[in-house]
Amino acid sequence: MASTGNWAAQIRAGDVRAVSRALTAIEDREPEAEALLRELFPHTGRAYRVGVTGAPGTGKSTLVDRLVEHYRAVKRKVGVLAVDPSSPFTGGAILGDRVRMQKHASDNGVFIRSMATRGYLGGLSQAASDAALLLDAAGREMVLIETVGVGQGEVDIVRLADCTLVVLIPGMGDDVQSLKAGVMEIGDIFVVNKADREGAGRFEEQLRGILSLVPEREGWKPPVVRTVATENRGIGDLAAAIEQFRQHNAGRSGHSVREERLWKERLLQLLQQRLVETVMGRPGAEAKLEEFAKLVSCRECDPYTAVETLLADAGVGEKTVDAVRSR
Amino acid sequence: MASTGNWAAQIRAGDVRAVSRALTAIEDREPEAEALLRELFPHTGRAYRVGVTGAPGTGKSTLVDRLVEHYRAVKRKVGVLAVDPSSPFTGGAILGDRVRMQKHASDNGVFIRSMATRGYLGGLSQAASDAALLLDAAGREMVLIETVGVGQGEVDIVRLADCTLVVLIPGMGDDVQSLKAGVMEIGDIFVVNKADREGAGRFEEQLRGILSLVPEREGWKPPVVRTVATENRGIGDLAAAIEQFRQHNAGRSGHSVREERLWKERLLQLLQQRLVETVMGRPGAEAKLEEFAKLVSCRECDPYTAVETLLADAGVGEKTVDAVRSR
Repeated sequence: MASTGNWAAQIRAGDVRAVSRALTAIEDREPEAEALLRELFPHTGRAYRVGVTGAPGTGKSTLVDRLVEHYRAVKRKVGVLAVDPSSPFTGGAILGDRVRMQKHASDNGVFIRSMATRGYLGGLSQAASDAALLLDAAGREMVLIETVGVGQGEVDIVRLADCTLVVLIPGMGDDVQSLKAGVMEIGDIFVVNKADREGAGRFEEQLRGILSLVPEREGWKPPVVRTVATENRGIGDLAAAIEQFRQHNAGRSGHSVREERLWKERLLQLLQQRLVETVMGRPGAEAKLEEFAKLVSCRECDPYTAVETLLADAGVGEKTVDAVRSR
Repeated sequence: MASTGNWAAQIRAGDVRAVSRALTAIEDREPEAEALLRELFPHTGRAYRVGVTGAPGTGKSTLVDRLVEHYRAVKRKVGVLAVDPSSPFTGGAILGDRVRMQKHASDNGVFIRSMATRGYLGGLSQAASDAALLLDAAGREMVLIETVGVGQGEVDIVRLADCTLVVLIPGMGDDVQSLKAGVMEIGDIFVVNKADREGAGRFEEQLRGILSLVPEREGWKPPVVRTVATENRGIGDLAAAIEQFRQHNAGRSGHSVREERLWKERLLQLLQQRLVETVMGRPGAEAKLEEFAKLVSCRECDPYTAVETLLADAGVGEKTVDAVRSR
């Protein structure tokens, strides 16, 4: 703990190298990451987290870059997490982000980090959540969390934000049907980017029509903001909408309700992770799992019997079977 | 078990109502679903599962419809699962699918079902996997699993397929960058739909360029197939490519390696689910979790201490802590 004490102090002072090292520890799930986060935890809760999601090609990265510039112009410290849940294999930063990082490299007030999936079982949303906490402890006032694509992975990630932007572009799908219900329901603010495109007016109209069907949450009606990120248009309006949402929630229970819901999910994830580690961390467990996978794939054993055996081996078997049977 | 015996027999005979009831039981995680799947499991392993993924607006639904028509024309029994991982809230079928279901309603050889997320923790990929097994047991020779969007949720779902189609359209993003590495790596076959659009040639060229960088898996080089689903063009070529991939894997270890990897993941998911049920199924556990979520959100307790307490209450605490500490 003595070693993380110094490290934690450096992070709280905003030391870029210390923050960077900690983010790597979080991504790699190193044991020190937990000790560090445990120590930093009481010093978190001040950053405002903005989630940015939308399909590939909607210009999210450019939009986030513009928001960073906007916040830097008013001297707010910014952290950016670019999260890619669609890439469980490579684990590397995407090409574009390297360019972006260089662009802001000389500015200590901006910290940009790309994260991709490592390992299984919801690891990325946990890692992103921990990374956001870390940037919070490091004194970042705005933490922008940008995801790639729209799917369950992304939904899990943007739900950890205080405010979620859904970025759309005119002509994305051929019609309204491509705007799925789930996406409509996670957005606190809708951004119609590339709003200089043909059909933007009609698209916005359709969007407002759909949004009128989504029930209000905590007295908030998600606004639609038009931007042309490449030309830096509408960014001020967007920042104003974010601030408005923040103010809206600050004065009521909205924020704390959201925080509690978020933490409930996070605790459940952490619980799950610990449980799997307990069972799979036992010597021989991995080999046994692979043996059963082989048996099941040849239909020599059914998956339920396989799992019950694995659990029984770990000493939690009977309890589990009982719990399931007694329902 | 006596009651599921008759039900299982009806499913194996392909009775549509029995299959439909079973799919509802799977979605709702009713206890009979497990008994049923346990009984049907030895009779599975014959269906060929084709996963279809791609961003909204790429025309996946139309493409799947055309494939269904193609397979029906050669008298193969088809099941379609339209899975929407981006909609964790509504749990309802999307508008378009109701129309599609009506279209094939008079044909007993086609079974179409929409599924959306219910509950937390990877429930959808489990439900989709179970649903595919059920359709397999019900004698469906081809099971098409269509997802919405491209994200971790979708990746989890298409990975349960024997063959994965990634559907793209020309002009989707502004350039190559929007084709993320993860998507490139899950595709066994790439479909350029709406291939009559401007820029299709250039897009396909770029795509082939990227694909040339993806390492070959098991001696297979993912082909690119051009289609115009709305005009029923290229569907025969696509079906031929699917058949070719199937033949390619049939003659070697590819299929069984894939099956084993899939079952390993599924067993791990099932294990995880059982463990969480054991801990959270205890009386008072839910209330305790909510209490801790409140404490953590006010920074009165850190998340690690909260989870350790929850685990200790369930009698698995010390073991877990030891397992983590001893790493």
